[in-house]
Amino acid sequence: MGDNTVRFGLLGCIRFASKFVRTVTQSSNAVIIAISDPSIETANTFAAANNLSPETVSVYGSYEELLDDPRVDAVYLTMPVTQRAKWAVTAAGKKKHLLVEKPPAQNAAEIDTIVEACESNGVQFMDGTIWLHHKRTVKIRETMFDSGLLGDVRHMYSTMTTLVPEQVLERLTKEAMGLAGAIGELGWYPIGAALWAMSYQMPVSVKALPSSVATNSVGTILSCSASLQFGSTATATAIVHCSFLSQLSTDLAISGSKGSTHMNDYVIPYKEDTAWFEYTSGAKFVDMHIGWNVMPEKVTVDCSGTEESQEATMLREFVRLVQGIKRGDSEADPKWPEISRKTQLVVDAVKKSVDIGCEVVYL
Amino acid sequence: MGDNTVRFGLLGCIRFASKFVRTVTQSSNAVIIAISDPSIETANTFAAANNLSPETVSVYGSYEELLDDPRVDAVYLTMPVTQRAKWAVTAAGKKKHLLVEKPPAQNAAEIDTIVEACESNGVQFMDGTIWLHHKRTVKIRETMFDSGLLGDVRHMYSTMTTLVPEQVLERLTKEAMGLAGAIGELGWYPIGAALWAMSYQMPVSVKALPSSVATNSVGTILSCSASLQFGSTATATAIVHCSFLSQLSTDLAISGSKGSTHMNDYVIPYKEDTAWFEYTSGAKFVDMHIGWNVMPEKVTVDCSGTEESQEATMLREFVRLVQGIKRGDSEADPKWPEISRKTQLVVDAVKKSVDIGCEVVYL
Repeated sequence: MGDNTVRFGLLGCIRFASKFVRTVTQSSNAVIIAISDPSIETANTFAAANNLSPETVSVYGSYEELLDDPRVDAVYLTMPVTQRAKWAVTAAGKKKHLLVEKPPAQNAAEIDTIVEACESNGVQFMDGTIWLHHKRTVKIRETMFDSGLLGDVRHMYSTMTTLVPEQVLERLTKEAMGLAGAIGELGWYPIGAALWAMSYQMPVSVKALPSSVATNSVGTILSCSASLQFGSTATATAIVHCSFLSQLSTDLAISGSKGSTHMNDYVIPYKEDTAWFEYTSGAKFVDMHIGWNVMPEKVTVDCSGTEESQEATMLREFVRLVQGIKRGDSEADPKWPEISRKTQLVVDAVKKSVDIGCEVVYL
Repeated sequence: MGDNTVRFGLLGCIRFASKFVRTVTQSSNAVIIAISDPSIETANTFAAANNLSPETVSVYGSYEELLDDPRVDAVYLTMPVTQRAKWAVTAAGKKKHLLVEKPPAQNAAEIDTIVEACESNGVQFMDGTIWLHHKRTVKIRETMFDSGLLGDVRHMYSTMTTLVPEQVLERLTKEAMGLAGAIGELGWYPIGAALWAMSYQMPVSVKALPSSVATNSVGTILSCSASLQFGSTATATAIVHCSFLSQLSTDLAISGSKGSTHMNDYVIPYKEDTAWFEYTSGAKFVDMHIGWNVMPEKVTVDCSGTEESQEATMLREFVRLVQGIKRGDSEADPKWPEISRKTQLVVDAVKKSVDIGCEVVYL
């Protein structure tokens, strides 16, 4: 383990954290040295299931103990969203760099407290929105936006739906899901996708679509669509849709003044080792309207190396930033907290629109 | 020319009508015997450009003359939308079966006058929404809906956008485009697609999205998105989008309780001789969320025969109905006028929502 290696601790041992362990294990400059969970049984079970040897990985029955371990450089937070802000602030106070599962908090005010704690303690913050780090995401940016093939963004459509069995829907409480319910848990993705496509220009207003909002008996939002308006006239509009009532769909369609692009697996690609998107540019119907002048182009990105998955590229970026700070070469990069904060501000605005009867909310 | 052959006349010689001439020419049981246009020069030019010989095709300088030609069984109307209802009613009065370009009229009241005229004169009415007749459309119905692979429809997204040069946008007047502007001319498709997916159950309400509406200086609607609610609770929602401000896009995405399906060329397929759609069913992320449990299935439909294009299958259906009536075997099929009427009712409701400041309109 070189001096450059970033030593990770886990705050929370949910099953999903196995993916992070796998990614770190496959990386050359990061290592898991500690895990923690309020239930020591959960932590021990997780250690065994993920082949984390007690000789190299400390297992703690509380987050405090892990945060007091001076060997830990950075922590990965996966506890329920309602607890993330509190523990993120505590961890920052212990000079731990933060990789926080999305959504990183329940609202933008909570994110602000996290970001302030990170700034005053000189540690890096990043949320775990993996797809932003996928090689495909970079490739679309170059291919469609930087090249001009898409032109100006006019209309976007993005979804994140995943089916939850009917008997489980009632158990989706605000304590478990956060106040924004599906908007935070799922809507985070399509809202973030729209912001990404707009290069993080903020919408001027958002509006939940009344016909789209469904809640369970305890008031947790299960399904919601919203429109986001960018620019003071109708320069660009995004429709975002999130739902626990539909089978898995993760669509991202962007329509521009010159072209359009589509992915139906933008959140997590169908396969880990390859991913693609399709586009047309300058499309029109041919004479007599019996077809198109162009066929959709399919651009494929190879991710077959063990350090080429979106989890690996996210980890690489986070480790790079932490190493720079550890070496004293650079300060924390404000880009990632800013992306989290903007995404959360829009999540909050959509939630507010739902709360006030689907009226327009200005940002 | 057998007794069973349906003899067509054209009311209007716009360039686009060449496609219809080509389709009829390739068919075995229909023939063009007359064309007409208020400008005899336009009609003559059209005849020459489409190799319509004066020996077999009469060229008229007025619609009245063509409608007085007793040899004509059926007419194809392509004149501007603002004149379609008037001439459709006149043609029905002359016992001509009607194939009318979409949108067939400016509002549902006009369609009602057409349908009444067709009923009282015993002639068939059909509008020219070609994609409804594509073999792919039939195949999706079987594959996704009838089989249960899609489950209940939860969310739909459909577009029809086509770029009009900036200097032409101002020339899109209500006289040329009809009162509903882009909603009638383009929105007809996504609205019709949502109704098709819902098996022509009508929405309970529609709402134009304020951020999406753009007009030119004479008030013609150039761009609009709207949400359609089906069912009294949030059982199914459609987002429809039409615009003259974006490059060509014709997306149809349907998300259901069990699966989802996508086409990006539903209005006119990329190629005439083949078409496909993709779907997933029972999709979920695999363990550790590093991919999906299923890959998108691509279903391809072969349309390589000259009578297999969507234009040919539309013509075949229309000719079949007309032949049945001519033989006295059957009456006019109310299915097609009903589809036109329902589509127009929703177009009208979206237009009304725009007119009243994007408030909800109940149907």
